[in-house]
Amino acid sequence: MTNPKSINQYRALFVSHLEGQIKLKEPENLYEPIIYILGLGGKRLRPVLTLMSAELFGSNTMNAMNAAMAVEMFHNFSLVHDDIMDDAPLRRGKTTVHEKWDINTGILSGDAMLIKSYQFFESYPLEVFKELTSLFSQTAIEVCEGQQYDVDFETREDVTILEYLKMIAYKTAVLVATAMKMGAIVANAPEKDADAIYDFGKNLGLAFQLQDDYLDAFGNPETFGKQVGGDIIENKKTFLFLKSLELGKKEQKEALMHLYSIKPEDSDTKVETVKTIFKESGAVEETKAAIHEYTERAFSALEMVNISKPNKLVLREFGKNLMGRTV
Amino acid sequence: MTNPKSINQYRALFVSHLEGQIKLKEPENLYEPIIYILGLGGKRLRPVLTLMSAELFGSNTMNAMNAAMAVEMFHNFSLVHDDIMDDAPLRRGKTTVHEKWDINTGILSGDAMLIKSYQFFESYPLEVFKELTSLFSQTAIEVCEGQQYDVDFETREDVTILEYLKMIAYKTAVLVATAMKMGAIVANAPEKDADAIYDFGKNLGLAFQLQDDYLDAFGNPETFGKQVGGDIIENKKTFLFLKSLELGKKEQKEALMHLYSIKPEDSDTKVETVKTIFKESGAVEETKAAIHEYTERAFSALEMVNISKPNKLVLREFGKNLMGRTV
Repeated sequence: MTNPKSINQYRALFVSHLEGQIKLKEPENLYEPIIYILGLGGKRLRPVLTLMSAELFGSNTMNAMNAAMAVEMFHNFSLVHDDIMDDAPLRRGKTTVHEKWDINTGILSGDAMLIKSYQFFESYPLEVFKELTSLFSQTAIEVCEGQQYDVDFETREDVTILEYLKMIAYKTAVLVATAMKMGAIVANAPEKDADAIYDFGKNLGLAFQLQDDYLDAFGNPETFGKQVGGDIIENKKTFLFLKSLELGKKEQKEALMHLYSIKPEDSDTKVETVKTIFKESGAVEETKAAIHEYTERAFSALEMVNISKPNKLVLREFGKNLMGRTV
Repeated sequence: MTNPKSINQYRALFVSHLEGQIKLKEPENLYEPIIYILGLGGKRLRPVLTLMSAELFGSNTMNAMNAAMAVEMFHNFSLVHDDIMDDAPLRRGKTTVHEKWDINTGILSGDAMLIKSYQFFESYPLEVFKELTSLFSQTAIEVCEGQQYDVDFETREDVTILEYLKMIAYKTAVLVATAMKMGAIVANAPEKDADAIYDFGKNLGLAFQLQDDYLDAFGNPETFGKQVGGDIIENKKTFLFLKSLELGKKEQKEALMHLYSIKPEDSDTKVETVKTIFKESGAVEETKAAIHEYTERAFSALEMVNISKPNKLVLREFGKNLMGRTV
């Protein structure tokens, strides 16, 4: 039986490895932004999942380090390019790359990060290399497609719940799933176990993203981290919004459609009105039910994984902690 | 003995394969720009080189098709992102992707193209897959570094000839070299032959780029394709410019530095004066000598390749034709 490390221990291991890897080289204007964004911190959730998964499948942590690096490098690549597209001034409370340098630097450094991600797989044996690389490409394309759907939805009036779920699956959940599956691949786990841990990660990722939608409207402003009501102010078509349109009465729908066509100077009344519609339409209950449903699906997938009971418990506890946040 | 095809035949084969591969899929806003840029034509020089190299090393053309697709896809990715960075309105006489759609579309479709390039290698056996993927990553990083050096040089006053040569090697020549080496890898050629054909391609690529510098100033306006004198008008630090600074007399250097600090409305006098300095400083002769030198190095590398004499002659003729353009 392995003696599983805590999330904090995995994170510390990863960050220490990352810091040892980061060296400034020429041309500095290409590599400085990469070091900057990788150094901004964050939860390091994805690489931690790769390390944890590898160890629970019987590999040692160091053997999974390059796969974890690839996942983190790719995640940061997507942040740099997404921040350009969203014209975001801040990332983790610090200036974004394209603001600190310029858009061209953000594009080119991002490209280099995407390529560097692939290079981390080169340390693995042939078959593992091919499995990791192919899975990574598939996931990376889905993340791009998810980002495109997200952009498309901004100007579309007819987004369905199914389309929304596909978008968040691609944009967020598949990378969480892939982070875990990579751990299984590195540990030479059987394919069906690798697929089951992928399903665990994907469903947990979906549950997490839906919970993020919920907390963005109903979270505790003092602990949520982002501005509560931000999605409503930005007229973002979240699960709550789309469910309200599906379930709401005619007047509720009309009010919602109107409120999502304006951006009033003082947003407080709008946020409160929208939240009332979310509640009264039944959308809040449905969102909570969906979060519960995807969390349960994640745990069912976990049951299919052939690892020891204590190791399964580690992942179950991780999932419960992740979903237990009430911030 | 193989019966080598003509460049036009390879190109026709490639274009027909490319057209069969291109299918619009969802999300259309991601894939439409990819189809658009791939359909703009061009000489298809790089994929043709992959097919030709593979066949001369004894493989059949179809076996090299996916590697050729990867090279062409990557080349077009770099065009889309470079055009954003250069704020270029036109590419091959047509509207650039970011002008026809927008910058965000250019960034995201470019990202997807870079990832798609990698996916083309998945059809090859394990070892070939790993060799192609690793070579591709290495080259892709060098292309990014070359682009960064190019950007950096715009605002630097102390660029050396060596730095300039490294920049054009990375930005242009390594992809030509890699296109040819991929043909060798696909054909399971011995490593030393694959490396020799890489050297052939790299030196030929350097000679070609230096010739491009020369023709940009001294080419025939009726056949060159680009605006003759364009580099001078844009104050671009080419080999001719850097050599003139190295070799020129004090007055010539000063005149050149002044002319490269202004962008006069009527550029004709500037272009003529600069061209006179290029000639009188001896830079033109040195540039011609460098073109000759790199072409000869390419042919020396070719001598080391273990393929039949007739096949070697095919590559030699190709090189001579490429460098024989006097447009």
